[in-house]
Amino acid sequence: MATLETIGERRLIERMLSVCRPRQGATTVIGPGDDAAVIGGLSDGRIAATTDSVSVARHKTPGMNWEQFGWTAAAVNFSDLAAMGARPVGLLAAMDMPGDMEEADFLDIASGIDQCCEFCGTEVVGGDTKPGPGTVTATALGSFEGRKPLTRSGARPGDVVAVTGCIGEAAAGFLAEQNGLEGFDDAEFAFRVPVPRWEEGMAMAGTGIVTSCMDLSDGLGNACRAVCAASHAGMEIEWEFLPLGEDTEEVCRLCRKDLRETALRWGGDYELLFTFDPKDIDALYKAGVAFSIIGSVDNGRGAFIAEGGERREMPDGIY
Amino acid sequence: MATLETIGERRLIERMLSVCRPRQGATTVIGPGDDAAVIGGLSDGRIAATTDSVSVARHKTPGMNWEQFGWTAAAVNFSDLAAMGARPVGLLAAMDMPGDMEEADFLDIASGIDQCCEFCGTEVVGGDTKPGPGTVTATALGSFEGRKPLTRSGARPGDVVAVTGCIGEAAAGFLAEQNGLEGFDDAEFAFRVPVPRWEEGMAMAGTGIVTSCMDLSDGLGNACRAVCAASHAGMEIEWEFLPLGEDTEEVCRLCRKDLRETALRWGGDYELLFTFDPKDIDALYKAGVAFSIIGSVDNGRGAFIAEGGERREMPDGIY
Repeated sequence: MATLETIGERRLIERMLSVCRPRQGATTVIGPGDDAAVIGGLSDGRIAATTDSVSVARHKTPGMNWEQFGWTAAAVNFSDLAAMGARPVGLLAAMDMPGDMEEADFLDIASGIDQCCEFCGTEVVGGDTKPGPGTVTATALGSFEGRKPLTRSGARPGDVVAVTGCIGEAAAGFLAEQNGLEGFDDAEFAFRVPVPRWEEGMAMAGTGIVTSCMDLSDGLGNACRAVCAASHAGMEIEWEFLPLGEDTEEVCRLCRKDLRETALRWGGDYELLFTFDPKDIDALYKAGVAFSIIGSVDNGRGAFIAEGGERREMPDGIY
Repeated sequence: MATLETIGERRLIERMLSVCRPRQGATTVIGPGDDAAVIGGLSDGRIAATTDSVSVARHKTPGMNWEQFGWTAAAVNFSDLAAMGARPVGLLAAMDMPGDMEEADFLDIASGIDQCCEFCGTEVVGGDTKPGPGTVTATALGSFEGRKPLTRSGARPGDVVAVTGCIGEAAAGFLAEQNGLEGFDDAEFAFRVPVPRWEEGMAMAGTGIVTSCMDLSDGLGNACRAVCAASHAGMEIEWEFLPLGEDTEEVCRLCRKDLRETALRWGGDYELLFTFDPKDIDALYKAGVAFSIIGSVDNGRGAFIAEGGERREMPDGIY
């Protein structure tokens, strides 16, 4: 099998892009192969852009295959777009992999990136590759089509706090793999194939009633604290209201991990935390967004977690 | 002095962004600090996007300081925008540096990135940082304001071939440093602080008469071959017409490097190669673009270099 160092940089980019399929309906005017890509169809003259790196050393566990690693590299960026209410319109990927990597593994990463783009209705519009230690830095671009971008800074006292999906599922999957537990395939899959909530983010932004939004990439505690800081507001989250992942409690018990610590401080869920005035709730139902209300915004400062009449400061993420 | 591993990732991003100054007149709607940046003012609904990595191992010579390394990381991306005729409207930078790096050096890289953004009339709109081996992956975004994007694919038989600036200057600077030659400060500066031709690229696109364009990042030979391939055309470059850097011949002689090999195959000049119908030349003069005509496009296949009545195939870049 060929390794990367035998192939040469320019041919490697070509092969990387050859496994990335163009999409029907994409707004790409000029795709990969020129000095830069050109994306059109930005009807309101605005674009969202975000960049995030993932590394083999930190993000790829032994149980995660190369396609899943590639998917993750794209997904963490699309999740950031989702939190702004933007529609994915393109992804650029810089892959810096070691020279002794097998070409097949390299192309599996590219294919995973491509599959996540497909899931998000978009495509790879550009790429770069250099010899490196095993890092993928992707940049995702998104359009607003007239929607107002969702930010972290608009939460107002009286709003309720909600999340999509469930909390602690990715952490449970990671722990199950690390500890060799059997029977937690769903949690392990959730950890290895994070789902960016791009349709939910767009639907939320489309309602016009969501006052703030952020993704849970660095954990629920981190997100609550960040929204409070950006919004100059307080927040109280009810522990009993949290939609814990099906396996989270059981896995924590088997691994002797503290459930609250795991659910509040661990990242990897890539759900959306958001706030809105409860009188506007019907707009979210109409938009088809599934969510759980977990707390409320108040006049205080900082985020708190409440349980059985006690409350304590929300812990920050573990990163 | 603090090293990166003692600071923590989130604080490091904050500090990195704190040395990046917002610009008057920037079209940034939402800058760094939220899940994604939002850029507005895309009046024709299009954006150019390009990503490129530079690494300490490959791009930073001992004579290059950290600010110059940061500048280079941004410049190589803005050069790609220049080749499309796009105006820089934002840069995202992912910095993956080793944990034992001094914070001051890290911030010098960020400052160099910021200075190149300033030179190009734009600003850093987002960033990320992870522990890594010393890689900066930047993504540059550019607007067209109604101009048609320049591509590599429109060169037509009868067009002339031109370049901005001079050829081989960066290679001379690199060789002078490597060989400890004295008295070639200008060439060394050209190598360490590449100037993206963004104003020239915009002016060219604004004329509407430029049929193809590409930057010289991977050398003149590579660019000529790429434009021929994309345009399904041939090209003959006259060696005598090439605007060699002032020091290139002397440095090659002192270092016993072949002048033609150095001028044609080495990269790093970041000038623009472009083509146009010579009857339209006045439009370029009026637009204030300085350039040298170096050859012509023909009905053949592939790029050739001619000298003294002989011609041979244009060599590819050394990468």
